[in-house]
Formats: sequence, structure tokens, C-alpha cells
Amino acid sequence: MSETKREKQPDEFELISRLSAKLPTGDSVVGGAGDDCAVIDAGVPGLWQLHKTDAVVEGVHFTRDADPQQVGHKALGRALSDIAAMAGTPRWATVTLGLPDGFDAETVESVYDGMAALAKRHDVSLVGGETVANPERLFIGVSLVGEVARDKCLLRSGAAVGDGVWVTGELGGSIAGHHLTFTPRLAEAQWLAANFKPSAMIDLSDGLAGDLGHLLTSANAGAELLESALPIRREARLRAKESEAAKPPLLAALTDGEDYELCFTLGQGQAVALLDRFKQEFPDTPLCCIGKIVDRPGLKIRQKTGLMEIATRGHVHFQ
Amino acid sequence: MSETKREKQPDEFELISRLSAKLPTGDSVVGGAGDDCAVIDAGVPGLWQLHKTDAVVEGVHFTRDADPQQVGHKALGRALSDIAAMAGTPRWATVTLGLPDGFDAETVESVYDGMAALAKRHDVSLVGGETVANPERLFIGVSLVGEVARDKCLLRSGAAVGDGVWVTGELGGSIAGHHLTFTPRLAEAQWLAANFKPSAMIDLSDGLAGDLGHLLTSANAGAELLESALPIRREARLRAKESEAAKPPLLAALTDGEDYELCFTLGQGQAVALLDRFKQEFPDTPLCCIGKIVDRPGLKIRQKTGLMEIATRGHVHFQ
Repeated sequence: MSETKREKQPDEFELISRLSAKLPTGDSVVGGAGDDCAVIDAGVPGLWQLHKTDAVVEGVHFTRDADPQQVGHKALGRALSDIAAMAGTPRWATVTLGLPDGFDAETVESVYDGMAALAKRHDVSLVGGETVANPERLFIGVSLVGEVARDKCLLRSGAAVGDGVWVTGELGGSIAGHHLTFTPRLAEAQWLAANFKPSAMIDLSDGLAGDLGHLLTSANAGAELLESALPIRREARLRAKESEAAKPPLLAALTDGEDYELCFTLGQGQAVALLDRFKQEFPDTPLCCIGKIVDRPGLKIRQKTGLMEIATRGHVHFQ
Repeated sequence: MSETKREKQPDEFELISRLSAKLPTGDSVVGGAGDDCAVIDAGVPGLWQLHKTDAVVEGVHFTRDADPQQVGHKALGRALSDIAAMAGTPRWATVTLGLPDGFDAETVESVYDGMAALAKRHDVSLVGGETVANPERLFIGVSLVGEVARDKCLLRSGAAVGDGVWVTGELGGSIAGHHLTFTPRLAEAQWLAANFKPSAMIDLSDGLAGDLGHLLTSANAGAELLESALPIRREARLRAKESEAAKPPLLAALTDGEDYELCFTLGQGQAVALLDRFKQEFPDTPLCCIGKIVDRPGLKIRQKTGLMEIATRGHVHFQ
């Protein structure tokens, strides 16, 4: 959760984009690095495969005293959330554990128990694992292969001017606990793709400002959000009340990260039908229209006091 | 390379086998944890997919002063070697980089250059990557999906009493340099599966004694090797000559690990044809018959002085 502060280093996004430019890819790669998952034509009739790798690290994404089952849940859940972002179905996972000196085998088994329980709930097969030494801290790498019908795959690109911007769940203050216990929005995403086909979708892992920013960059467009429409998590408000050093709730909702919710865009004509049918299908999942896509690039938020420009930078891991 | 010594912890194999027992899997999993790769029926006509994850860690698998391009080569090469062990074709890789404090972006780019060059040589697409913080040391996780014709997939199990035991290349002393520069035996493995169909195959990453041990356990059989037939790497002999503390060359060949060669079994009637045709096809790759599969479990080696029993434990990472 707590990002390590560093100076004079390229940030994560910059480094990834520099590295991505030199990656060899072939004809089977429908979409490579740059979306939530890589989209692969593996020769499965009617389907594309979604390939994703992700990792959580002790002291960065969880503390040493975190519940190991929840740590396992989070490690797999993050990758599931990326598969959800493309409306895919997760299928096969492999796990790499970097084990610290003096690791406790029971703790490691609990991490696996947390992963296995979540895998079972979503019919994911855990097909292999490796352990290596990582002397100072637990490191859990998860690789996931999913699949999606070729005509149902949702990308980050595709948002059109005038589309509404929607989010599931609530935003901000995830560090209070949500980041260890969240439910990846797989069912919601698949239902959305089957019934409404959003023009673009992404999962919120780095904070709304940053992740929506990626979606806007892909569309070469901007967005105007309405402050009063943002579903701010209670914990974000509480934290702001309890400490002056805490982020104001709006900033927390925009930049805290680790929400693991869906953000998608959809033609405004479908708004009423979506709200109505979604509520019937997922009575426990909040869904909010928080603004709209506009022509002019940039992210603005309408407050009582006027329109404020927001930097589209989320939770940057290496700055 | 240098394994970290720990006490009172389960070793890697024991832990993996305990963890594997509780992994949820589905009908699509033809072979899960326990072979070089998981074998998956992903719905591709005529093919199985091979899923593999692996990692290399600074101070464990390479030193901080190692050539970063070679480190990248090794990180991907190890996973390629596992795909080779099943006679597969590697297709799509994803990479997770755990970056230490004060990491140097040029070094990271060089690591990627090393991976990209090897990927290109084997037509592997690098389809995605993540970076996370791993404050004390560089951690490189590689996940690889390959494919293999269903009737050409070679497993660890299947060795029959009387089969010859074969290895490619040379064994031992890999730490002198081979572990950073090896060529995964993909071409040789595919050719073997297409032309001779070995009864079982494995790649040598933990040392001949340990890896052949896995193959024997699967077959519920034993093996008798001939000391004079073992292709011992020159560096293993040199190290033994230079220092009394170094392993004797035979022990090095059996237990050093990181050879990344193929070990396979094949009916003895095909030995002459194999030697002849392999030499024509791969003039630069040594191939040796080092012994045979026997009824009685255990690994024995015939020396001038008699028959010696060898513990089938290779390079155990966590003891």
C-alpha cells in the first residue's frame, strides 16, 4: 500500500512504456502490453486468451502483520480484477513465491489457502507454482490466463465523446481494509459485456484519476466528472476527519488506488436501462454515473466552486 | 547460484508437494504441478498448452555484478528450458520485475534487451510486464505459455525398465558461466519428439541426481549410470583441480544444477540410430547414453571400484 519514495528514477509508467517499445511480438498478439491484459489469438475457436502477470510484495502491498489468507486473496484477486476489466473469464493461474529468510511454512500455506479459496469461487485452476528465495520479504507473483469471446472483449480504448463515465463500488480509503478483502468484479463485467457492451473499460487499481487517464489517452479525449456523483468510501471520509494529514476525501477517491472496481464508458441513451437492470442483477454492487467524456483532453471535476483540472496521475509506484 | 542455507524449514520440494495437494484444478488440466510445465487443454484443436512460471533473484541466481543482458537471458532461458523438456514450442511470455531501491533504468533495459534477444531467436512474443518494488534486490519473474501437439508431448513419467538414459550437453560447473549463457534445447527436444519419441524427458535444472530422481520416482524404477560415460564439463574438472574445497567432478556433474540440458529415456534398440541421426542434425550438441533404467528403485553409479548408491537429491534451494 505505502509507496516507496524515490528520487531521480523514471516512474513506473514511463519505464514500462520504454520497455514495451522493444518487446518482440508476433501475429498472434491481438493486443500486447498497454491494456489490462495482453489479448492473444491462441487458436481457440471463437475465443481470445487474456494473459496477465502481477505481483504483491511485503512492505509495499501488504504489511508483515497482515492476515496471510487475505494476502493470498489479494495476490490472486488483483489479477482477477484485470481479467474482469476486459470482461474475461479467468481460467488457469501459476504462482511464484519468493520466500524470505526464516519463513514460516504455515504462513505460506495460509497464503495458498487464501488464493485457493478465491480460485475455487471463480473456477480458476491453480496449475503450478515455483518457490525461490527472496531473503528480506515475501514476494508473490501470480500469472493468469483467461479467455473471452472475441466479440465481447472490452478494451481501454473506444470511449466516445458524449459517453457517460461509470464506476462500480466505492472509491478511496482502500488501505483501511478493502485492499485485502475486495471481490473482483468478474460477474458484473461479464454481464455488462453481454448486455450493454460498454465502449471502453478498465479496472481501478492505481486510482480513478490515473486509470481513467489511461482510458482518456487511448480515446484522445477528456472527461468532466461531477464531485457530488463520486461514490466516496466511508473510510476515506473518516480518515480525513480523524487526521489533518490525511487526504481530503475527494483526493482520496481520485488517487488512493487499490479500489479494484470497474470504470467504463457507455452511450448516454442506455443510462436508465443500465441503472435499472444492473440494480436487479447486482443489488449489492453500487453503480454510479460520475460524469461524461468530452472532446477536450484532460480530466476536470465540477465542484460547487467551479470546474477544477485534475492531473491524470494515479498511484505511481516508483516516485 | 549459491543456495541460501537455512535450518528448520521444509525444503522446496516438500513444501511444493504439500501446497500442490490443495490446489484446485478443473477438467481442462491434463497435468498440473509436478511436471516441468502444467499441461492444459485450452480448446486449441490438436494442441495442448504448456504453462510455466519461474523466477531468478539477485544474490540467489545471479550476482549483482553479473552482466544484466545475461541475467535477462537466463531469466527467460530457464522457462524456455522447461518448455523444451516437454518438447513444446514457447509462444507468449509475461514478465514481472521486482526493482530494488535506487535501481538504474539502464540496467533494467539491459535485462529486457537480453530477454528480448532470446525471445526473438525462438519466436516468443513478450506480451506484457509489470514492475513492482522489491527494495533489496532485483527479482525477475517470467511466465511462459507454450504449445505442443497432443501426441508429441513428453512427460516425466513413462520410463521403462531397460530404456537407455541419455543427456544432451555437459554437466557440472555451470556456475563458471554456462548458467548465464546456455542455449535452451528447444530444437533438440522437438526433433527428438518428432523422430524418436523418448519414453520420458526432463530438463536438468537442479542437478542430474535430483532431476533424474524425479523421473525415476514417476516410473517407480531405478537407474544404473556409468561414471565413465558422464559428460563432465571441463569447468567442473578445473574447479576440482584448483581447490580442495571444490566438489569432485563426478559429484559436481550429479548435483551442481543449472545445466539446462535434456535428460531422457529411450528403448535401447534405437540407440545406434539416435546417435547417428542426432549427430547429423545437431553436430554441435553432445549427446551421451549414460546408463539404463533398472527395476530396483534408487540411483546407482558404476565406478571402477564398484557400484555406488547416490541420493536422488539435487540442488535443493531452501536447505
